Amino acid sequence: MKRFLDLADFSREEITGLLALAQRLTDKPEPQALAGRILGLLFFNASLRTLASMQAGMARLGGNSFVITPGQGTYQIETRLGVTMNGPAAEHVREGLPVLASYCDVMGIRAFADGKNLETDLSESTFNAMAALVNKPLINLESAMSHPCQALADWKTMDDLKVPRQGRFVLSWVWHPRALPLAVPATALHMAAMRGMDVTVLRPEGFALPTPIMDKARRAAAASGGSVRETADRREALEGAQIIYAKEWGATTAYGDAEADAALRASLTDWCVRDSWFERTAAQCRLMHCLPVRRNTAVADEVLDGPRSVVLHEAHNRLLVQMAVLYRMLKGDPQ
Amino acid sequence: MKRFLDLADFSREEITGLLALAQRLTDKPEPQALAGRILGLLFFNASLRTLASMQAGMARLGGNSFVITPGQGTYQIETRLGVTMNGPAAEHVREGLPVLASYCDVMGIRAFADGKNLETDLSESTFNAMAALVNKPLINLESAMSHPCQALADWKTMDDLKVPRQGRFVLSWVWHPRALPLAVPATALHMAAMRGMDVTVLRPEGFALPTPIMDKARRAAAASGGSVRETADRREALEGAQIIYAKEWGATTAYGDAEADAALRASLTDWCVRDSWFERTAAQCRLMHCLPVRRNTAVADEVLDGPRSVVLHEAHNRLLVQMAVLYRMLKGDPQ
Amino acid sequence: MKRFLDLADFSREEITGLLALAQRLTDKPEPQALAGRILGLLFFNASLRTLASMQAGMARLGGNSFVITPGQGTYQIETRLGVTMNGPAAEHVREGLPVLASYCDVMGIRAFADGKNLETDLSESTFNAMAALVNKPLINLESAMSHPCQALADWKTMDDLKVPRQGRFVLSWVWHPRALPLAVPATALHMAAMRGMDVTVLRPEGFALPTPIMDKARRAAAASGGSVRETADRREALEGAQIIYAKEWGATTAYGDAEADAALRASLTDWCVRDSWFERTAAQCRLMHCLPVRRNTAVADEVLDGPRSVVLHEAHNRLLVQMAVLYRMLKGDPQ
Repeated sequence: MKRFLDLADFSREEITGLLALAQRLTDKPEPQALAGRILGLLFFNASLRTLASMQAGMARLGGNSFVITPGQGTYQIETRLGVTMNGPAAEHVREGLPVLASYCDVMGIRAFADGKNLETDLSESTFNAMAALVNKPLINLESAMSHPCQALADWKTMDDLKVPRQGRFVLSWVWHPRALPLAVPATALHMAAMRGMDVTVLRPEGFALPTPIMDKARRAAAASGGSVRETADRREALEGAQIIYAKEWGATTAYGDAEADAALRASLTDWCVRDSWFERTAAQCRLMHCLPVRRNTAVADEVLDGPRSVVLHEAHNRLLVQMAVLYRMLKGDPQ
Repeated sequence: MKRFLDLADFSREEITGLLALAQRLTDKPEPQALAGRILGLLFFNASLRTLASMQAGMARLGGNSFVITPGQGTYQIETRLGVTMNGPAAEHVREGLPVLASYCDVMGIRAFADGKNLETDLSESTFNAMAALVNKPLINLESAMSHPCQALADWKTMDDLKVPRQGRFVLSWVWHPRALPLAVPATALHMAAMRGMDVTVLRPEGFALPTPIMDKARRAAAASGGSVRETADRREALEGAQIIYAKEWGATTAYGDAEADAALRASLTDWCVRDSWFERTAAQCRLMHCLPVRRNTAVADEVLDGPRSVVLHEAHNRLLVQMAVLYRMLKGDPQ
Repeated sequence: MKRFLDLADFSREEITGLLALAQRLTDKPEPQALAGRILGLLFFNASLRTLASMQAGMARLGGNSFVITPGQGTYQIETRLGVTMNGPAAEHVREGLPVLASYCDVMGIRAFADGKNLETDLSESTFNAMAALVNKPLINLESAMSHPCQALADWKTMDDLKVPRQGRFVLSWVWHPRALPLAVPATALHMAAMRGMDVTVLRPEGFALPTPIMDKARRAAAASGGSVRETADRREALEGAQIIYAKEWGATTAYGDAEADAALRASLTDWCVRDSWFERTAAQCRLMHCLPVRRNTAVADEVLDGPRSVVLHEAHNRLLVQMAVLYRMLKGDPQ
């Protein structure tokens, strides 16, 4: 495995194989497996879980890491091609990325969506251009539209909790003070569809996920025996849900327009997951979220501190699944 | 040992046991003792010695570390409970801390006093709330009122230098452009009292240490055979001193009031330790300071560059005692 | 080897010995050579290659590193002597440096020129004062006038590419929006002269390298059988060149005067290396640059993306030569 950029690049069997490897490495640690190997981490955006768990996971396998954060101890890095660089950026990705790749055995890059033009962000042109410059195994640590490590951790969490493969999964938009990227909702949706679940996207008007994202999930559902639908009707959506996956994202009808986005979300502050959301769900319905989560804004204390929340389980699984990805990339596929 | 938060949580024998372990690991290194183990470091405030020595100490024992600095590559982290998070902080400690703890085997946290309300800071409510969220061994890297790694290093320094157990220890306030927290003076005072020393707190009017801090030190002195007193009379305090422990702190009579604090300290710039301070001390009197120290503001060049200064010895001991703490936490207590 | 501060401190044989060691460690890795050893890195200025390659190199030899960046998670550090520290800096190098040195086995420091006074910067007084405080092996990661790791990597690159020892090396000034330090041009010039090359410094009027730098290079050339000259005539300079080493630097006739420097460079934007620069060079002429490079400002895309550019080769060699320096410092000289 040389690239871990999008769950859609793998078969269902490959994904379940990675999850099995994550469990095997948990049950039977291999603390010297990656001795002497180097992980290079490049973060264009803030991180807590990814920053800590990638380093911890590499070290638990015997390897080591370095972290590069443009603008913080490192030069600002230009990503546009053909530009005359007389602005603040002193380095271009066309040099910076191959150089960093040449120092390590595996690389991870986080580069969020620009959030200006939906077509551009959907095309993953920025991330793909960077990926093309890296001639080492590469892990997507969240790009414009994909966060596959999160998806893998979420899938494992549902397996751990014995959520049925065909259970009802509701991806619900929740409130946030400003527009956030589409990577996590797009990836969670695709992951649940690929797992074979009965998936509902619950979102207010103006926040429908883009057609290419919905179509991609529908194709995954078709292959796995799952289903995908969307609605703005919360009561209907939550009926019988086994998972509420809460996520904040920006208005897709006002993409890149902060003012219009703010106007759309102004009246939506009741999209905060509370205990009352679980009144008509399955009895065992769980709350999932990729974190960080704004308390009492996106999800209420009563839910996050109650027994339904599995957000810490998801976050811990980040460590375990990423160790499996690193191991698979550097030790090769099973025989 | 699952918590190293305050010297007061340990018996004198436990502390001297840690110091003996620090010496043993120095004399007979165990470079693989913590192989495969991970130290998670969370810094809400700036650091030089702690940041470097914790990582170096973990690596010298064969382990590895990651560092998280909220606001620098990592989300700002909310510590208040029950708040609706629509401000700059995207993450709450109630998620962030258990997540980080789940990635490591031992954790260290630095979180200085808020410096607004003395009662709140004395209660250690912020740090204690964070500590309760960490289900791994936890080291206090300086909280509102406690800096136990510094205290352990200082104790070892006096042992190394054969400063008598019942020697005269003067904790002296020194000048600084603004109010600094009470953690180091409170901890140095308690440490010296617990060691059994004859302790004097020398400070100008307005800068007396809070009663709970003085009382805690007096209890430690009573148990160890030491003594604790305070004075504003420099000449009297320094008479026969074997240690001058210089430290800057804020006016306790104007806690949280920067303007009143500034007025109180405006006339106190002569509280800078100079050679003349040692005229009536013991001949071998040493200058201690936790660092960083502002030269010619808190302590003059002539003292820091002279033979009395042991500040570098103290700083180096940070490495050695922290290795003992890490070892004890992860390898267990001696049989 | 206890200091790696300037190529001029070593004989030609010592340098070629280091290059041979770099190659040996590449051909026959020693992944446990520096197990348990600690590298302390102190960066007063931004870095990408150095930050990543020093950590990666140390880890590839089995060691570990910590990174300190004053002002980013660490206190600002005062470097002036005798000053009363009542400004923003809380720590002085006279404490900070010996403390960090006491935590590690080898140290690296980056501290660029102040860029205010040429004589002061030429004297390396700031870096030398810091070096005197470090009682461990010390690597210069770029000081006011020296960047020996870059020079070593560049030398190895030319050896790798079989550029003749006496080949024509043109160090050419190129455009940049503002004045940059002299460390890299001074060091590249000296390195090429020491290698025995026929060296031309090509620069516009106002940008001649200072006499002490030219004289030092001439001495190195005299010892190695090379030569050094300078010109403002691009056509003449590039005739038959085997290497164009592009570098940005500030006007030496207006050192420390940003306005006068800007006036001098305003009309020089055609000093951007393009394919046309190679019309009269040797057929195999290469483009070298230390990176980061501003595209289409200092060097055009057509050159950086074409077959003449060896900038990535140079950058990768940073890793290899630094591993040799670390190994030599901590494992000793060959018997």
